[in-house]
Amino acid sequence: MATTIRTPLFSPTSTRFHSSHNQQLQLRLHFSKPRLLHSFPNFSISCSSSSQSQPQPQPPRHRPPYIPNHIPDPSYVRIFDTTLRDGEQSPGASMTSKEKLDIARQLSKLGVDIIEAGFPAASKDDFEAVKMIANEVGNAVDQNGYVPVICGLSRCNEKDIRTAWEAVKHAKRPRIHTFIATSAIHMEYKLRMSREQVIQKARSMVAFARSLGCQDVEFSPEDAGRSDREFLYQILGEVIKAGATTLNIPDTVGITMPSEFGKLIADIKANTPGVENVIISTHCQNDLGLSTANTIEGARAGARQLEVTINGIGERAGNASLEEVVMALKCGGHIFNNLHTGINTRHIYLTSKMVEEYSGLQLQPHKALVGANAFAHESGIHQDGMLKHKGTYEIISPEDIGLERSNEAGIVLGKLSGRHALRKRLEELGYELKDDQVQTLFWRFKAVAEQKKRITDADLRALVSDEVFQAEPIWKLDGLQVTCGTLGLSTATVRLVGDDGSTHVACSVGTGPVDSAYKAIDLIVKEPATLLEYSMNAVTEGIDAIATTRVVIRGDSNHTSTHALTGESIQRTFSGTGAGMDVVVSSVKAYIAAINKMLSFKEPSSSAEKIPISASNI
Amino acid sequence: MATTIRTPLFSPTSTRFHSSHNQQLQLRLHFSKPRLLHSFPNFSISCSSSSQSQPQPQPPRHRPPYIPNHIPDPSYVRIFDTTLRDGEQSPGASMTSKEKLDIARQLSKLGVDIIEAGFPAASKDDFEAVKMIANEVGNAVDQNGYVPVICGLSRCNEKDIRTAWEAVKHAKRPRIHTFIATSAIHMEYKLRMSREQVIQKARSMVAFARSLGCQDVEFSPEDAGRSDREFLYQILGEVIKAGATTLNIPDTVGITMPSEFGKLIADIKANTPGVENVIISTHCQNDLGLSTANTIEGARAGARQLEVTINGIGERAGNASLEEVVMALKCGGHIFNNLHTGINTRHIYLTSKMVEEYSGLQLQPHKALVGANAFAHESGIHQDGMLKHKGTYEIISPEDIGLERSNEAGIVLGKLSGRHALRKRLEELGYELKDDQVQTLFWRFKAVAEQKKRITDADLRALVSDEVFQAEPIWKLDGLQVTCGTLGLSTATVRLVGDDGSTHVACSVGTGPVDSAYKAIDLIVKEPATLLEYSMNAVTEGIDAIATTRVVIRGDSNHTSTHALTGESIQRTFSGTGAGMDVVVSSVKAYIAAINKMLSFKEPSSSAEKIPISASNI
Repeated sequence: MATTIRTPLFSPTSTRFHSSHNQQLQLRLHFSKPRLLHSFPNFSISCSSSSQSQPQPQPPRHRPPYIPNHIPDPSYVRIFDTTLRDGEQSPGASMTSKEKLDIARQLSKLGVDIIEAGFPAASKDDFEAVKMIANEVGNAVDQNGYVPVICGLSRCNEKDIRTAWEAVKHAKRPRIHTFIATSAIHMEYKLRMSREQVIQKARSMVAFARSLGCQDVEFSPEDAGRSDREFLYQILGEVIKAGATTLNIPDTVGITMPSEFGKLIADIKANTPGVENVIISTHCQNDLGLSTANTIEGARAGARQLEVTINGIGERAGNASLEEVVMALKCGGHIFNNLHTGINTRHIYLTSKMVEEYSGLQLQPHKALVGANAFAHESGIHQDGMLKHKGTYEIISPEDIGLERSNEAGIVLGKLSGRHALRKRLEELGYELKDDQVQTLFWRFKAVAEQKKRITDADLRALVSDEVFQAEPIWKLDGLQVTCGTLGLSTATVRLVGDDGSTHVACSVGTGPVDSAYKAIDLIVKEPATLLEYSMNAVTEGIDAIATTRVVIRGDSNHTSTHALTGESIQRTFSGTGAGMDVVVSSVKAYIAAINKMLSFKEPSSSAEKIPISASNI
Repeated sequence: MATTIRTPLFSPTSTRFHSSHNQQLQLRLHFSKPRLLHSFPNFSISCSSSSQSQPQPQPPRHRPPYIPNHIPDPSYVRIFDTTLRDGEQSPGASMTSKEKLDIARQLSKLGVDIIEAGFPAASKDDFEAVKMIANEVGNAVDQNGYVPVICGLSRCNEKDIRTAWEAVKHAKRPRIHTFIATSAIHMEYKLRMSREQVIQKARSMVAFARSLGCQDVEFSPEDAGRSDREFLYQILGEVIKAGATTLNIPDTVGITMPSEFGKLIADIKANTPGVENVIISTHCQNDLGLSTANTIEGARAGARQLEVTINGIGERAGNASLEEVVMALKCGGHIFNNLHTGINTRHIYLTSKMVEEYSGLQLQPHKALVGANAFAHESGIHQDGMLKHKGTYEIISPEDIGLERSNEAGIVLGKLSGRHALRKRLEELGYELKDDQVQTLFWRFKAVAEQKKRITDADLRALVSDEVFQAEPIWKLDGLQVTCGTLGLSTATVRLVGDDGSTHVACSVGTGPVDSAYKAIDLIVKEPATLLEYSMNAVTEGIDAIATTRVVIRGDSNHTSTHALTGESIQRTFSGTGAGMDVVVSSVKAYIAAINKMLSFKEPSSSAEKIPISASNI
């Protein structure tokens, strides 16, 4: 029952077998910590479900050409990533346009087929972000002809659909995704519409989207998991006639069991008139922890588009996670008739880290595949142990998702390392940085190296996050001095520089060093905000580690957007991170970063101007 | 397709319906935060998969009497919790005997059928913890005759089995769980044994366990998911003949797809000679995010014991989580022929929090059911919103797992609140505390109330964790003074009191305030340790929140135990938490707590004496 799956893209020329590979690794696993791999042009993935039989080489499988309502290869499954739309709706996960653009670029590297870039009607910021992604990422065609579809969500009304089209229309492959609820409870309590009215609305709005010139229209019957089956067939048949090319079946409240969801997809495929002319899609929420299982059961039943998010983020318990769905399809190939995707799994780890950083939604250590412990079972096991074969407890090589176990030799940088060595290591870690960014990082690197013998990959990632993955600075920290302790009279003095170059100093007492410093900042910035969350992690082992602080704030002035599903007005919240060897300094930097992010949302037109639309990769 | 499931135990006398209940709640949901419910003697759970039909009242369902190899009620599923064994093997999750005892008491309140209390042969500490749990929790029979089975894990050898029996034998219902690997890869590379040798070993060791007087013996063929099917039937048939009462089928590496795992269980039930005389059990790892789905598919195929952990903790990506499995069985009742468990779901939330605290494994915000965002979809939505019916986006009431949405009225305590009000609120939160503990908490509470207008439930929980959920103190913080800032010359002075009452003062400079304080502590304690993890969370909204810090350290001296599956020697790691309004003070308290935990492991005999074996509930 062994399965070895070679990824379909990137013309693999070499094949590594899991067992021999593991034996090579076994001597350098002691107290290992994962680090990132730079991307390999040629690779294969082996998923060992047994050691007995030999891996079966398979022919290379390519991504089929993109036709909205048809996939020439019947075993190809499209991956639709909605990290930037459904994921960004998580409390505290608001992202700036620049952050969204970074993530969209990374999703394109990862090879997702469709990027749902946002809900353009939510606010001017959302509109601008989708438009920027459509213009840039939606036109960056690679040498194989691949470019992701850029999709905008819209409710079933002309204004939303028109706004979505305006945002996506300049992409090479634009898509409008419109939806209306079809369950009895939603139609009665949320829409207050009859079945006939809902059908009429869906049909006319799909037709309206097509009439604007959009050839690629996705329709979702919201809360399909609880909708009447016959009514579903009927409305789906009508929107197919009206021109829908993809039908997405959401389990909006996450109540469906895997076998049940599989049956729902199979029933829709069997009973919807005209279904042979469209792609069926899944969208599974995770309220009972079943989203990954539901999604792959949907694929087994014939769905050929799977809607997922990186790290499984999203409202409530989130969505099916891209990494789990993609790897489960690979490992369960023998169950799923060798379905395949276009995902370059070696970019999973870096993408996961980037989304964790930008969304501020930190993963639990036991998150499957991308959590800190996911590959850490050797932790603390003595080197002279009796584990003779890696495959005894490991089914996927961490390298397959872009992680490499580091060893002592992996920790390469120190006080005497130069700019060239730093740039090289950053490239190996997957970062493509501009010269001035490397320059800035180098000074930070030197400052850390003065105090810390060895600079690890995790240290470097923390510095990159702190220097590069930040909102446009409006306020900058120029100096901080704090006294605190059990006496209880914490006092902080801060000096900030504004974007006009002016210097401001304030001091405050508080209940602790962070409280007093934040109060001093408030005295200068004068932009009332409520601190909602505060957390900190040391990213590296050892008492001299770099600490990364993350805060989430809510502005007391209004920063609102519209919730796609409920139509309600939402107060935005803003996250900020800061890194440093001093926890108070990193806390202060995080707060300033969150304030800068909030201020950049305040004046949408000017903030949009500030963000350069370029093809550069950072 | 509506299902309303009323929990089987605790003689429900009233029934709340989801819809009317939701309408009552709708006006007080603005910016709501969850808080704990005190336990209700009578309750019901409604799981709305549709609003159309009326809930069907069902007769109360009771936990059937315990017979090791037989369940009189064919639709009753036993819940086997292995948080204290498999969960505790997670990196950094080492727990003291006192912590394990607290969790075992809580698991008993939750109503789990079997508590796997540890692996007694791992170390003297592990042995003592299992024994203490067997003696106390394993004899606390409630008025309905319920008492959990206390189970000890052992490898397939006489010494392990004898040690396990010594640890559990004084429980009212003791069980020995022994295992040996049956997959080709494990037999070849780990055991270096032939199939015949493995069968012979399994048979003789099950018989040996029975010969000691143990009437309840569980056997697991490790890595069953990758084992040859015919060989599995054969070895399972042999251990049944030798006296095994439960056969547990582990998907050790988490590679199995849900449909595949269901088929594995069905095949074993169909083909194993004598299987009608034993209980079949599941044990699913989460490497691909499929553990919950695999577990419930196992139940659908006939498994009547499900091995799970609270929060899904465990090695690598962890295990199936108790809360997800139990709630999925409830919500999917129509799929699972109304299988039921004995779990009192209203204790889920507090149990989850306790395990998060003690294991140090923090949950991601989108963890299903018990994550911070799991019920937070209303967050930030304006009160005048158009969400007319709670059930539109919510399938489970948070109250069903012991969470209540609080409103302004929920924040009840302040500066003028007295001891009585504090004790009452703590009881409502589910804590049963002794007088001296309430007294200590009261002084801490007063100190916080001096600086903070309103004390929230989250603040109270942080204080309880800091004061009550701690290892026996050896070193105590008596004073701290810190200066830090961007100048980069952080200096800390600490004063500690030892358990002999002596006072010690030391100062140190460092790279930040925490680093300098930890170095000063090291100068006093003189017990070399490496800091592995450092994290901090503010538990409440607002800039004056209480921060909780958590650290994980590894002693540089040896603190080892034996890994159950690999047989390797593991260096223990120790976590500590500290809470306070000053982040540096809370960081220092966390480090001292971790050191105290480490020191309490150092001399197993004396530390065991320090822990009182009593029937008191804390």
